[in-house]
Amino acid sequence: MTKRPSGRAVDECRAVSIETNFAHHAEGSALIRVGGTEVLCTASVEQRVPPFLRNKGQGWVTAEYGMLPRATHTRGNREAAKGKQSGRTQEIQRLIGRSLRACVDLKALGECTITLDCDVLNADGGTRCASITGAWVALAQALDKMGRSSALTGQVAAISCGLTQAGAVLDLDYAEDSNAQADTNFVMTSDGGIVEIQGTAEDKPFQKKEFFALFDLAEKGIKELIEAQNKARRK
Amino acid sequence: MTKRPSGRAVDECRAVSIETNFAHHAEGSALIRVGGTEVLCTASVEQRVPPFLRNKGQGWVTAEYGMLPRATHTRGNREAAKGKQSGRTQEIQRLIGRSLRACVDLKALGECTITLDCDVLNADGGTRCASITGAWVALAQALDKMGRSSALTGQVAAISCGLTQAGAVLDLDYAEDSNAQADTNFVMTSDGGIVEIQGTAEDKPFQKKEFFALFDLAEKGIKELIEAQNKARRK
Amino acid sequence: MTKRPSGRAVDECRAVSIETNFAHHAEGSALIRVGGTEVLCTASVEQRVPPFLRNKGQGWVTAEYGMLPRATHTRGNREAAKGKQSGRTQEIQRLIGRSLRACVDLKALGECTITLDCDVLNADGGTRCASITGAWVALAQALDKMGRSSALTGQVAAISCGLTQAGAVLDLDYAEDSNAQADTNFVMTSDGGIVEIQGTAEDKPFQKKEFFALFDLAEKGIKELIEAQNKARRK
Amino acid sequence: MTKRPSGRAVDECRAVSIETNFAHHAEGSALIRVGGTEVLCTASVEQRVPPFLRNKGQGWVTAEYGMLPRATHTRGNREAAKGKQSGRTQEIQRLIGRSLRACVDLKALGECTITLDCDVLNADGGTRCASITGAWVALAQALDKMGRSSALTGQVAAISCGLTQAGAVLDLDYAEDSNAQADTNFVMTSDGGIVEIQGTAEDKPFQKKEFFALFDLAEKGIKELIEAQNKARRK
Amino acid sequence: MTKRPSGRAVDECRAVSIETNFAHHAEGSALIRVGGTEVLCTASVEQRVPPFLRNKGQGWVTAEYGMLPRATHTRGNREAAKGKQSGRTQEIQRLIGRSLRACVDLKALGECTITLDCDVLNADGGTRCASITGAWVALAQALDKMGRSSALTGQVAAISCGLTQAGAVLDLDYAEDSNAQADTNFVMTSDGGIVEIQGTAEDKPFQKKEFFALFDLAEKGIKELIEAQNKARRK
Amino acid sequence: MTKRPSGRAVDECRAVSIETNFAHHAEGSALIRVGGTEVLCTASVEQRVPPFLRNKGQGWVTAEYGMLPRATHTRGNREAAKGKQSGRTQEIQRLIGRSLRACVDLKALGECTITLDCDVLNADGGTRCASITGAWVALAQALDKMGRSSALTGQVAAISCGLTQAGAVLDLDYAEDSNAQADTNFVMTSDGGIVEIQGTAEDKPFQKKEFFALFDLAEKGIKELIEAQNKARRK
Repeated sequence: MTKRPSGRAVDECRAVSIETNFAHHAEGSALIRVGGTEVLCTASVEQRVPPFLRNKGQGWVTAEYGMLPRATHTRGNREAAKGKQSGRTQEIQRLIGRSLRACVDLKALGECTITLDCDVLNADGGTRCASITGAWVALAQALDKMGRSSALTGQVAAISCGLTQAGAVLDLDYAEDSNAQADTNFVMTSDGGIVEIQGTAEDKPFQKKEFFALFDLAEKGIKELIEAQNKARRK
Repeated sequence: MTKRPSGRAVDECRAVSIETNFAHHAEGSALIRVGGTEVLCTASVEQRVPPFLRNKGQGWVTAEYGMLPRATHTRGNREAAKGKQSGRTQEIQRLIGRSLRACVDLKALGECTITLDCDVLNADGGTRCASITGAWVALAQALDKMGRSSALTGQVAAISCGLTQAGAVLDLDYAEDSNAQADTNFVMTSDGGIVEIQGTAEDKPFQKKEFFALFDLAEKGIKELIEAQNKARRK
Repeated sequence: MTKRPSGRAVDECRAVSIETNFAHHAEGSALIRVGGTEVLCTASVEQRVPPFLRNKGQGWVTAEYGMLPRATHTRGNREAAKGKQSGRTQEIQRLIGRSLRACVDLKALGECTITLDCDVLNADGGTRCASITGAWVALAQALDKMGRSSALTGQVAAISCGLTQAGAVLDLDYAEDSNAQADTNFVMTSDGGIVEIQGTAEDKPFQKKEFFALFDLAEKGIKELIEAQNKARRK
Repeated sequence: MTKRPSGRAVDECRAVSIETNFAHHAEGSALIRVGGTEVLCTASVEQRVPPFLRNKGQGWVTAEYGMLPRATHTRGNREAAKGKQSGRTQEIQRLIGRSLRACVDLKALGECTITLDCDVLNADGGTRCASITGAWVALAQALDKMGRSSALTGQVAAISCGLTQAGAVLDLDYAEDSNAQADTNFVMTSDGGIVEIQGTAEDKPFQKKEFFALFDLAEKGIKELIEAQNKARRK
Repeated sequence: MTKRPSGRAVDECRAVSIETNFAHHAEGSALIRVGGTEVLCTASVEQRVPPFLRNKGQGWVTAEYGMLPRATHTRGNREAAKGKQSGRTQEIQRLIGRSLRACVDLKALGECTITLDCDVLNADGGTRCASITGAWVALAQALDKMGRSSALTGQVAAISCGLTQAGAVLDLDYAEDSNAQADTNFVMTSDGGIVEIQGTAEDKPFQKKEFFALFDLAEKGIKELIEAQNKARRK
Repeated sequence: MTKRPSGRAVDECRAVSIETNFAHHAEGSALIRVGGTEVLCTASVEQRVPPFLRNKGQGWVTAEYGMLPRATHTRGNREAAKGKQSGRTQEIQRLIGRSLRACVDLKALGECTITLDCDVLNADGGTRCASITGAWVALAQALDKMGRSSALTGQVAAISCGLTQAGAVLDLDYAEDSNAQADTNFVMTSDGGIVEIQGTAEDKPFQKKEFFALFDLAEKGIKELIEAQNKARRK
């Protein structure tokens, strides 16, 4: 086994910090930093619901995801200029939306829509996981401001794990992510419930017991992220 | 525990049949039927590679997915008329492409592109899994025709499992899928390797042991699909 | 005069078969096969009308047309992926819609929309004509199911004729179509009425008497298609 | 039989005038007026061919069609603002292109593209026919300027005829066109060759002998348009 | 200082003429010619307002701008075919709209929308200024026809000035415009009010006193355009 | 005259700070804060030029502009999701590009493209001016890193001024901007050269002497911004 590029232990997360109120106007906001990855998450409340929910006495939570063109090592094309969102972008924002809806009682929310915008300012791997973890803080803050804290039924965070040359490791950075044999994302609640699991063999198939090892790492990582969320909330 | 809507046992797959050569012109084709779900999968070989692979001495395997407007209970809008593919469509075709690339040696393939088109003629749940299972047969047939059978390094199939009112069940149909508490898709090889795992809590988070139960069911289902593929290949 | 590529007589149609109920969910469906051309036609009934017909006490009949990417000898790009329907596609679906509206009493239909989706599974020339002929069967079946058979005021079918190296011939296949000097499509009713005529010189202009010869062939061909429709309806 | 709204005889064309050089920069241009319909046709020569013709030693002739938003009784939406050309626009520009290619020897033209832009300044029915008739004059002028007059192998014009309350009539204006039972367009050469025929039943099917009556009217109308083209060319 | 390409004096406008009623159907229309630049401006009145103005008891004035593909020296791509309007087009039509709204009392107009379509038939520089100047005439004519002349609260015209090899000059034509060091557009009222000023250094920054010299020229030019508008109105 | 909403003197700019290196990967970056407006400006260097500059031995400088959906008081739709950039966005990014090109010797730059991405994180008026002022710092930093400092031929900054209820004022914030009678933007160099001037009457036309008063204010503001740029550069 070789060492991780960052020198971290295999079960070591990167440093995490979450700063609220970076956005001046949003009902909730969190600027989350996980190592070199920085995502600005905002929660916006609007007094309308999508057409398929009209007059059903419930609200909606949805998400949009974007990456600033130069958040990455080489500049990527601006999706607004290309005229469409990539498949990757759509896949990620659907994941964020599903994950956050898993911890909100939409009936208790009432007829409104909360949109979680996750915009990556700097990318170093794990942007979708950081988005989910940060968006939960922004969402919780918005619900507090609305006086609907009771609609928040759970706490979710997300972490990636993978099989690399250093073996099964926790919280992949870009250098690891771009060379991993397998890449998995776990979205879990503070009480250990599974909200979403995605595992992909990048190069060759992997084995059941390898998957279970990644699962164990994820559970450790989720605990640390939950703690970082709580710390940001207490401030 | 209640019974499954179809009366099937919890670990019982739907009837599977795979008919090759339905498409007259394609290098490979498979019309797969899994219960009431029917997907026409074709493999098309073109002597070109995408820009990012030019002059690298390797080929490419990619997939596109579509659903005929009236494959479903109520008519869906035609994506060509709307002018864009939905996030769901893009997510599915990315999954199919990744899954099939996992069983091809792209260097052995040589400088060409194989496109797997998966078009749903009738939908009754599990269309993405049926697409992967059928596309593998079309792909294998195309590689045979090209005289590149050796580039095929594995055999993949896909099955869904879920938590329903009848408990953990194998191979969800539409009636189950639209009411499941959790929905998982497993893409696996004939020798038990994991290519892709996707698990989603639809309503409330689920537990690790529930996930493991679904995993066991999936392994049983994959074996049956692998057999159906082999049968179609022998014909 | 040379022989036709298929060996058919100049006034000989290809074998025609029409299979109903191929689509599981549609109110009406017909899988029409004309030689190597196969089109799945479905009729979908929706309880709404387009904006320009609201509150006018009448219904609407419209059509959409698509071709699976590998219905053809070489793979064509998927229109949903390109983000727009080609001029050819739009021209064909407008033709199908006009042709079917010619045999429906829209007032007797009532305030609903019937959409005829014609998707080409395999193409060997004459796909627009096969679409019209098949769509009529799907439409008739849907009207029966709705209890509105009386809104069906006529029976239409369509056939192509052309000037080829074998002279004026009936029902062009792809080999003929791609080399014809002139290509004409006739949409006619069972009692000899003209619904639509389209004639195009592909290479050099043609003469009035040549056009009349094509017209005579078309009348013969339409009779055979009407018979095939009736046979499918009787089943 | 009632009278025509314009008071014209059934076989009477509207006044036609064709003014060349209205466009300052184009290699050829014709502002054609047919009654209240005015179309500005320009021919633009570019030293390139579309990809499918590269290195084949031949040229290309194509057409684009547009209508100024307020060419019509009520303002239509600008297609550039809507972001796409309607099916009707595409159908018309494909027709114009085919019609003009029928009178050019593309090999004699050499490796260049001539684009015929037909923009309707004022519309009163028959805009597609006026476009073809005017575009031929612009095309001929451009070929003269290029010193390639010999590539012009024929002379085409187009006229509409229809079945109205006044019977079979020649050259429909808007008032007639919007109420006709059948609407037909004939694109023909100066020596009586057929380039394109399009006949559509708007309300109920029409009969073969009615179609032949329209054909006879068209032949008369084409002669008059050919004369107007010659007059414009002589100036 | 060298001479102007056209031989005009530095403070000399090109010949201006404005012809009303060129468009047959529009409530107001003006074909404006400024030297070799020709723009057809139409005013269309519709009994609706944009969503953001509903039930506010006021109307709206907006503009759209287009250029025929061969209005220019070399053919430009048709924006409707490209599927979007360029940044330049949008910038110009926003400018025209703002300029015309500056001389209408939207409350006095009542709940309707007037759309000014400015389509360039021939381009030789200064098309945006000619559009504004012509659109005002079309607008005034439409307000007269509506019996709402009192909603017209001012008279606007627009002119360009620039720094060229001949020094500060009035009313740039294309030859000057494409080589100018600075290009400025002034939209002003008949009583000397400023509606819009746009000044751009094309090559290197310019000085305050140069800008003032351009301003003085503009005031002279505006007077002449106002006179041309009045002349067209009197006819 | 009433007081300014912020209590500032009429000729008082908001506090300005410019932080470099906020973006981790870009060749140059500046996070500029002007009061409550925050824009992240990055400069990205790519070794290619647009098609129209190929083989001309010169480089290119261009800009793109975006606003995070919740940079504003109420959430705006994401342009990437809408599928196109608004006219406003395009107008602004064209302005930024022109302004920065005015201070670069494109021949000295060599064959490469520098793209300035200006993304608004928080908006409180004056975002286009802040973008230009910040982008200059990012551009200068990138040129330093490339060893091409000599290609930087000038220093530009931008400021808005307007006519408000407090009279002619410098550096409008959102509260002033949304109610101003006139809004002007000045892009100027450190030695007083004019790069771009845009002045718009929002409500009613304004007078020449008012415009000159705004011009004087702008010159004062530009000096302060130039100083802030220099301070950021020295760090």
